[in-house]
Amino acid sequence: MSSEPSPAASPESSTGLLDRARREYEALAARGLKLDLTRGKPAPEQLDLSEELLSLPGRHPAVTDGVDLRNYGGLHGLPELREIFAEVLQVPAGQLLAAGNSSLELMHDCLVHALLSVLPGAGSRWADEDRIAFLCPVPGYDRHFALCERFGIEMIPVPMTPAGPDMDVVERLVAEDPAVRGIWCVPKYSNPDGVSYSDDTVARLARMETAAGDFRIFWDNAYAAHHLTDAPVEIADLLAACAASGHPDRAFVFGSTSKITLAGAGVGFFGASRANVDWLTANNSKRSIGPDKINQLRHLLFLRDADGVRTHMERQRALLRPKFAAVQRILDRELGTTGLATWTSPEGGYFVTLTVPDGCAGAVVRHAAEAGVVLTPAGATHPYGDDPRDATIRIAPSYPSLPELEQAMLGLTVCVRLAGYQKLLAG
Amino acid sequence: MSSEPSPAASPESSTGLLDRARREYEALAARGLKLDLTRGKPAPEQLDLSEELLSLPGRHPAVTDGVDLRNYGGLHGLPELREIFAEVLQVPAGQLLAAGNSSLELMHDCLVHALLSVLPGAGSRWADEDRIAFLCPVPGYDRHFALCERFGIEMIPVPMTPAGPDMDVVERLVAEDPAVRGIWCVPKYSNPDGVSYSDDTVARLARMETAAGDFRIFWDNAYAAHHLTDAPVEIADLLAACAASGHPDRAFVFGSTSKITLAGAGVGFFGASRANVDWLTANNSKRSIGPDKINQLRHLLFLRDADGVRTHMERQRALLRPKFAAVQRILDRELGTTGLATWTSPEGGYFVTLTVPDGCAGAVVRHAAEAGVVLTPAGATHPYGDDPRDATIRIAPSYPSLPELEQAMLGLTVCVRLAGYQKLLAG
Repeated sequence: MSSEPSPAASPESSTGLLDRARREYEALAARGLKLDLTRGKPAPEQLDLSEELLSLPGRHPAVTDGVDLRNYGGLHGLPELREIFAEVLQVPAGQLLAAGNSSLELMHDCLVHALLSVLPGAGSRWADEDRIAFLCPVPGYDRHFALCERFGIEMIPVPMTPAGPDMDVVERLVAEDPAVRGIWCVPKYSNPDGVSYSDDTVARLARMETAAGDFRIFWDNAYAAHHLTDAPVEIADLLAACAASGHPDRAFVFGSTSKITLAGAGVGFFGASRANVDWLTANNSKRSIGPDKINQLRHLLFLRDADGVRTHMERQRALLRPKFAAVQRILDRELGTTGLATWTSPEGGYFVTLTVPDGCAGAVVRHAAEAGVVLTPAGATHPYGDDPRDATIRIAPSYPSLPELEQAMLGLTVCVRLAGYQKLLAG
Repeated sequence: MSSEPSPAASPESSTGLLDRARREYEALAARGLKLDLTRGKPAPEQLDLSEELLSLPGRHPAVTDGVDLRNYGGLHGLPELREIFAEVLQVPAGQLLAAGNSSLELMHDCLVHALLSVLPGAGSRWADEDRIAFLCPVPGYDRHFALCERFGIEMIPVPMTPAGPDMDVVERLVAEDPAVRGIWCVPKYSNPDGVSYSDDTVARLARMETAAGDFRIFWDNAYAAHHLTDAPVEIADLLAACAASGHPDRAFVFGSTSKITLAGAGVGFFGASRANVDWLTANNSKRSIGPDKINQLRHLLFLRDADGVRTHMERQRALLRPKFAAVQRILDRELGTTGLATWTSPEGGYFVTLTVPDGCAGAVVRHAAEAGVVLTPAGATHPYGDDPRDATIRIAPSYPSLPELEQAMLGLTVCVRLAGYQKLLAG
């Protein structure tokens, strides 16, 4: 969470500052940069860390417990790999499915099956309801919002706090509106603001009373192992909390190795109560004769165990930390005294959220694009692409090289000053 | 297609034959076999042919045309791999998508997207229609039927002929019933009866007038390269025929490498008109940030080109042909003179269809199971598991070893004689 910007300059003194920003912007535009800070993609060096995967399983026999992993079958995924990620994702291995190369697919398919089948606890298919709504903590992840929009699921924004979504708002909405069937959560190092949910938030999510009998928490634990500091954040175990609160079927837990091993060729996971797992497996069994178990074996041989995941993530951290540090350093140096922006200092995950004066985010992104620095579109962090304050910018530092990132960040700060002082002078 | 059985024995002479069948069945049951002819799974030796895949791409740079195949992106799949299967599946590479490890998934997802989005040519989402029906040539593939059943799509059986589905029936049904939105087709070496569609059938499917504006042919070309003889069957190009007939969006072509390389770790394909491909890609873009392109690169490096596919399928044929020959030999020898059964002699694909006297298929499968030989459930070849004549048995010879297959087939023929003579005596 970043606090509110509060410009340090008076309108009177802004003229000179704006003139300087204009000159710097012209110089920036003249350089013809072509830099991209849009997506949370791993850099090539991060992918290189998993080079060994590209030759696996090699001569290792692709048969475990009498099951030929090369053949059809095994809808639940490789048990040994599920054991590893049981610990990472806080889901008992027996309730964890290992699937294809994307957890987004699993989220999509859970929505599809809820729309076209009857969820445990539901009275009817969601497709037969007049109105289905999801709570969307904002700022949030644009791909979650795109799934809702694609299926006509109404999105209700809920403000984020430093401890997770504002639970007073969440509790009121889920209690009074039976159309509210779900909430999107990125509980650790949240996309984009880096917030990790407090134990109290997790407990309240688990125990709150909901008007809908089939309410689901879509718990996208995408950054479960993606620490940036020496003190990894631990979040409370949602699945256990839901079970203990008498709502065992409330949690859908998602995770993947996309930002652990190879973004395009990893393994996705789904964890939930036995009833939910049986429901998804039954629906999946019509769709597929099993996931790519050879790729799961590859990951098992490469990562070995939960310690192996931790060691590997240390290597990822060594590559990511200098980039996140550069973002902080440049924002501090270039904007620290202007009061034109605030920003997050995430302890993990993939993003920094930059908050600019109301009404300026779109202008900053536009200025930057015209100068060759592409940012995530302003508004993408909000449902329907609509950030009502037009103040939130998501920065994704992972993909560019460090020198490119530094150039892009310098350019971005020029654009913030340009748009900020323009706003200040316009009154 | 197999013709009708016509028992050679008179009821009078059947008593002795039944007694003999009973004794043989007792001996069979006493052996305590445990054999499985249920599914069209490749045998381990077939999977061994693709052992090289397990070490690929190895040190090959996983970057083509500036795209890092390890990272997110590339929704259409690897262009070079699509080139190879463009030829195999008769779809221009620009209209062919390479996807995950299963074509069944693609069929499922096409149904989902048609239910929840609006198909090109459709007036509304299928989920908003009172009734959606599919034509199901019988005998057919149980997993196609399971998809329809799962989504509440009504199934209308259409009889198969030696040239494909009975087109007089098909043309009448699609012309008169606007609820009929699709037909399932396995056009080459069909599952389970081995029929390949004639050029005339393909032409009629392409040009027929349909009451529904969004009628789709689900063209599951699962055995496109899976020949068993020296004279590979060629079928007409449906996609081109549909375009030429003014129905460019009618064909959805599916295929995969599941029975070419690794059944569980292959690559699935979808081909169609540009409008259909754009529609599927747009929907898929919400679901996924791209397929596993590394697995596609593996397949590219292993298969190399369409000639490579042909050479590889020759090796598959060398393993499969003795098994199919054994099935024919044993059926001929054990049942040839009884008139109790007829069967297909497929020129490709994965199955033999055995037709027994009406009312006997369930009994044969039951007898066999009790004696330790598991067959595909009787009825599985028909919608809702209901073979109204109870006469069709699907034999899947690929998975067991040759000695196991021979034992299983011998056991099966005993069960056919037992059930057949029981029926004959019962009158």
